[in-house]
Amino acid sequence: MEEKLSFVSDYMEGAHPAILKRLLETNLLKTEGYGGDAFSESARNKIRAACQSPEADVYFLTGGTQTNAVMIDSLLRPYQGVIASESGHISMHEAGAIEYGGHKVLALPHTAGKISADGIERYIIQYRNDVNHEHMVMPGMVYLSQPTEYGTLYSLDELKRISGVCRKYQISLYVDGARLAYALSCRVNDVTLPDLAALCDAFYIGGTKCGALFGEAVVIPRHGYIPHLFTMIKQHGAHYLQRDVLQGFSLIRCLPTAFMGRIGVPAIAAADAIRKALREKGYPTAYGSPTNQIFVVLDKEKAAALSEKVELGFWENADDSHVIMRIATSWATQMEDVERLTAVL
Amino acid sequence: MEEKLSFVSDYMEGAHPAILKRLLETNLLKTEGYGGDAFSESARNKIRAACQSPEADVYFLTGGTQTNAVMIDSLLRPYQGVIASESGHISMHEAGAIEYGGHKVLALPHTAGKISADGIERYIIQYRNDVNHEHMVMPGMVYLSQPTEYGTLYSLDELKRISGVCRKYQISLYVDGARLAYALSCRVNDVTLPDLAALCDAFYIGGTKCGALFGEAVVIPRHGYIPHLFTMIKQHGAHYLQRDVLQGFSLIRCLPTAFMGRIGVPAIAAADAIRKALREKGYPTAYGSPTNQIFVVLDKEKAAALSEKVELGFWENADDSHVIMRIATSWATQMEDVERLTAVL
Amino acid sequence: MEEKLSFVSDYMEGAHPAILKRLLETNLLKTEGYGGDAFSESARNKIRAACQSPEADVYFLTGGTQTNAVMIDSLLRPYQGVIASESGHISMHEAGAIEYGGHKVLALPHTAGKISADGIERYIIQYRNDVNHEHMVMPGMVYLSQPTEYGTLYSLDELKRISGVCRKYQISLYVDGARLAYALSCRVNDVTLPDLAALCDAFYIGGTKCGALFGEAVVIPRHGYIPHLFTMIKQHGAHYLQRDVLQGFSLIRCLPTAFMGRIGVPAIAAADAIRKALREKGYPTAYGSPTNQIFVVLDKEKAAALSEKVELGFWENADDSHVIMRIATSWATQMEDVERLTAVL
Amino acid sequence: MEEKLSFVSDYMEGAHPAILKRLLETNLLKTEGYGGDAFSESARNKIRAACQSPEADVYFLTGGTQTNAVMIDSLLRPYQGVIASESGHISMHEAGAIEYGGHKVLALPHTAGKISADGIERYIIQYRNDVNHEHMVMPGMVYLSQPTEYGTLYSLDELKRISGVCRKYQISLYVDGARLAYALSCRVNDVTLPDLAALCDAFYIGGTKCGALFGEAVVIPRHGYIPHLFTMIKQHGAHYLQRDVLQGFSLIRCLPTAFMGRIGVPAIAAADAIRKALREKGYPTAYGSPTNQIFVVLDKEKAAALSEKVELGFWENADDSHVIMRIATSWATQMEDVERLTAVL
Repeated sequence: MEEKLSFVSDYMEGAHPAILKRLLETNLLKTEGYGGDAFSESARNKIRAACQSPEADVYFLTGGTQTNAVMIDSLLRPYQGVIASESGHISMHEAGAIEYGGHKVLALPHTAGKISADGIERYIIQYRNDVNHEHMVMPGMVYLSQPTEYGTLYSLDELKRISGVCRKYQISLYVDGARLAYALSCRVNDVTLPDLAALCDAFYIGGTKCGALFGEAVVIPRHGYIPHLFTMIKQHGAHYLQRDVLQGFSLIRCLPTAFMGRIGVPAIAAADAIRKALREKGYPTAYGSPTNQIFVVLDKEKAAALSEKVELGFWENADDSHVIMRIATSWATQMEDVERLTAVL
Repeated sequence: MEEKLSFVSDYMEGAHPAILKRLLETNLLKTEGYGGDAFSESARNKIRAACQSPEADVYFLTGGTQTNAVMIDSLLRPYQGVIASESGHISMHEAGAIEYGGHKVLALPHTAGKISADGIERYIIQYRNDVNHEHMVMPGMVYLSQPTEYGTLYSLDELKRISGVCRKYQISLYVDGARLAYALSCRVNDVTLPDLAALCDAFYIGGTKCGALFGEAVVIPRHGYIPHLFTMIKQHGAHYLQRDVLQGFSLIRCLPTAFMGRIGVPAIAAADAIRKALREKGYPTAYGSPTNQIFVVLDKEKAAALSEKVELGFWENADDSHVIMRIATSWATQMEDVERLTAVL
Repeated sequence: MEEKLSFVSDYMEGAHPAILKRLLETNLLKTEGYGGDAFSESARNKIRAACQSPEADVYFLTGGTQTNAVMIDSLLRPYQGVIASESGHISMHEAGAIEYGGHKVLALPHTAGKISADGIERYIIQYRNDVNHEHMVMPGMVYLSQPTEYGTLYSLDELKRISGVCRKYQISLYVDGARLAYALSCRVNDVTLPDLAALCDAFYIGGTKCGALFGEAVVIPRHGYIPHLFTMIKQHGAHYLQRDVLQGFSLIRCLPTAFMGRIGVPAIAAADAIRKALREKGYPTAYGSPTNQIFVVLDKEKAAALSEKVELGFWENADDSHVIMRIATSWATQMEDVERLTAVL
Repeated sequence: MEEKLSFVSDYMEGAHPAILKRLLETNLLKTEGYGGDAFSESARNKIRAACQSPEADVYFLTGGTQTNAVMIDSLLRPYQGVIASESGHISMHEAGAIEYGGHKVLALPHTAGKISADGIERYIIQYRNDVNHEHMVMPGMVYLSQPTEYGTLYSLDELKRISGVCRKYQISLYVDGARLAYALSCRVNDVTLPDLAALCDAFYIGGTKCGALFGEAVVIPRHGYIPHLFTMIKQHGAHYLQRDVLQGFSLIRCLPTAFMGRIGVPAIAAADAIRKALREKGYPTAYGSPTNQIFVVLDKEKAAALSEKVELGFWENADDSHVIMRIATSWATQMEDVERLTAVL
């Protein structure tokens, strides 16, 4: 019997076979004496090259929530908070991990998951002008996700303007790249890794949701920008010496020229095919996501009927009679599953 | 030369003369051997009697922000957050003290500073129904202020309904009474101390903003509801053995039958006189506050002109050409200053 | 050219080939529709069976430091601290991760890494009798490691007595089993998994240092003893939905009957052979460790000479002219390397 | 009937009458329009003058535990801990307030409450040389108390050497002056306020235990050394705008030339008289404290007999049959009580 079709999430996959193969090879190589350092250092160098940031500090951590918690904690002083979209992952779905570290998330309203340079600057100015601002949480950094939780992308121009505001007010800019591969693989995307390195103070290239066994690579373009980060990573329980080896393995092939540009391609192709089918069949979509997440608006009866045949993710209620459901593709999505979905629609 | 008229704040006053007098007397009595405990215990018993809560635990702390921080920290488990109005003092003006303790403020929209039983229940139900709720901060208590930051009051009926929601979902209800005396002195108020004791799990009777030298009295109607609170207070640096004596002095006279019902009376009388003058002269007010804070809407030129003669507190911009300014009276406000203000208007 | 011989650490290995093989198989099986839950649930059930704890709650986390941080945070109230050996991993080498969570480590003196029931009880009584104990950190749990950082083992009798003290004073007992496989494989060990389940409130079976790709399995024998632990794990950034699958894979074969009793065997055999060689050649050892860690006392010249040929771990200075060096074996140690080491000695 | 004689503590007194008198006068002055700022600024300037630190930042906080918590939190980065004596107030009796802020207390062994420049340097060097130091808490500051918890004093030479070590390794030096007045009034003391300002990065002049109504004055000799300290104070709930006025009152008269050199004088005179009596009657004392605390060694029967007639503070057991009891004098100690104590002895 055939399993039920599922587009509910992009992070229930195993690792990409090429990564597993490499892991298997190098696990054996270990006994021939290759040190962990060599692999990890090689991965770091590939990342530095891909980002055109030869001086960058690169760290490997194990997952997205803890990467965000560590980086926000290390970029802020205790009296500062982080500006983020109300829809940002850190605002909603990290179980208070940021507050656990003592910091307030200063949540701004968003448009399809994005916040703007103007909105950020307005917030900072309002804070500075408030006579009581010494009694308030000082904005100390900006958190963006690329792509956003709504699948949308910041354009290079938008990112430049946000970076400009951060530099003007001397606060850090940090980008959560949990699904960055799906941005980099996307035709309409115009933000490259070197752009991120030029415009941000720190960002991470996500492996866990993008085909690596697990692991996220934090890039800090200016060497030494965050002193003693290793100890803070350890303090958060987020780092393992021997795991660098594995993360080196996992990420070593994720880089743009070789892999990262490629691993997202089938996901985007599948998503584009689904978007086309939805358009042809007259289903409205929301937020205009061009990446691997599609948000389809369904009336509730239709949604209930569909759910018999295909598992989608509930996103939110559009109005009393309509829901928005998320369709997520991944590097592992099969075109025959896309065809089955199209047939079901 | 006459000093400039000021209605900018209600907490720039010294202590009420009756309290200072008592302090002076008992400071001398000390050398005759009266123990601190006797004063503090007497104060506790008067508070228990006034609240009709003979079993209540009563603690004296030194100020509002730390009282809120300690109480929220002791009422929540680490994975829980506190539901509060977006305008709540803990949301805005406590410099991240709640997040410093590791807790998220779950801010709800408000009407003139108040949140409703329905809004709270909707939030809890939405949390419970969210498929990802284990990834989110669990609502663990409700924070209200009486009067609110907008000077408005919860009615007994509103408080009963909020208390009902809290009990239905087994979360704690806590009331910040920084300006409670001004609520208790207010004609339209129908919430008494015994009502607060019956409906809340913890609340505090504010001294610092209400004529005491300093100090807040936390009341926990059910004995033992918060175990080891003393140690948590100490951990927050908020308690001093010898200060109980002083706080006992300060608060001993603040209680309803004797003092608290009285100390707010001149403040409300002054505020009512100012409200009447504003009405007669055609100045619109905002939020409908019946307590010692009045919010007057002024066009910007008028506000600038007034500020030459009287110091008011900037509250917020109403629109591009109007501002809302706060006029605050206190137990120490002189009627001749009210008359000078009326003349200026 | 031959690589340099190394016995510096037991956690620089890759994963056990059997685990990698299983990972590879199941990574492919995924596309045929096996759900993650099935694997993880199977792993949980095997752990429950091995611990003879059918009702146990079992969670998979990614590494030792964060497992300790999460468990200590969830077992304590904010005003409590954790009793541990001065030599405990949480006292020394976790970069302040426990303090980061707000808790003091109440460090007791140790004998070869171990603390005793008597020492623990004395500390608790002293705390309770202190007139200022409300100003001090209340002991709220006991942390042990089995084996300890010195490679030594608690006997069943010692563990029973410690458990008895914890139950007498109603505080939790938690055991860090980062290297538990090496205890379970050790001839002199008389503490089984069912013993741990019967005597502790929580413990973890370490995978990261014992041949699993990574991952630790927390066992809470009494179902529901720690409510909402999932959310706290998430708050600490320590948990990944899809990673359960991997951890299920990793740990599924680590259990006593099948694997765990076996994976430590070569490590102990290698360690025993090294101990025999040291004894025969007249090298004194320290602490009496029977597990996979050996502590050899060397004069400083000898240590320097040896370090040319084999990498050992510096442990501490014994006196002005002698050092204690650690020799660590692992599941992956080759007998030919043991022979090379013997020859070098 | 006469009350029982008590030398149990030096912080159960009220405020010095001169302070209360001034408070009463200025409470009335308020209504004639003196602003709070003028009083506080005057107090700040007197403190700057007394410390010969015209550029110093001066803040008023409400109590010792929170002053320590705020200052340690603001002087450290998250990955750093504070070096202190094992007997230090922050190590023992602040209910985990430092750990609550996320920092480990790195406790060193002491001699009669004091730690030494050598011991501190040894600790720092050992940390730096440890191959695992990135996994350990980095020493980020030194905490001393003057006088110590054992009533002993750092000499100017000792303080200079400790300051030298701190500057050599670029970590901050902070001195807890909860009982500083009793050091400054002590004949053998050779550390002045200008010395403290020259050698420390921050220190506080205690009011609460030294006759002020309450309040501690933090002095940061180099202006701007701790940015945004006001907001951190607020975040810890430790500061009140209107309270500055009071604290200004309290401390305005505590300064060396005027008051501080004087307020401790009767305490030291009383303590010296008691020390003389003890010596004459053959009671041994411990630790050699020259300040207002005396530690007398008593056999247990004698201690029990004495406790019928005078309340002393239990300090610790000297051996199985002897205890060490603390006798504390204060600014308010009466010579007739000293005579009654002498008679009882």
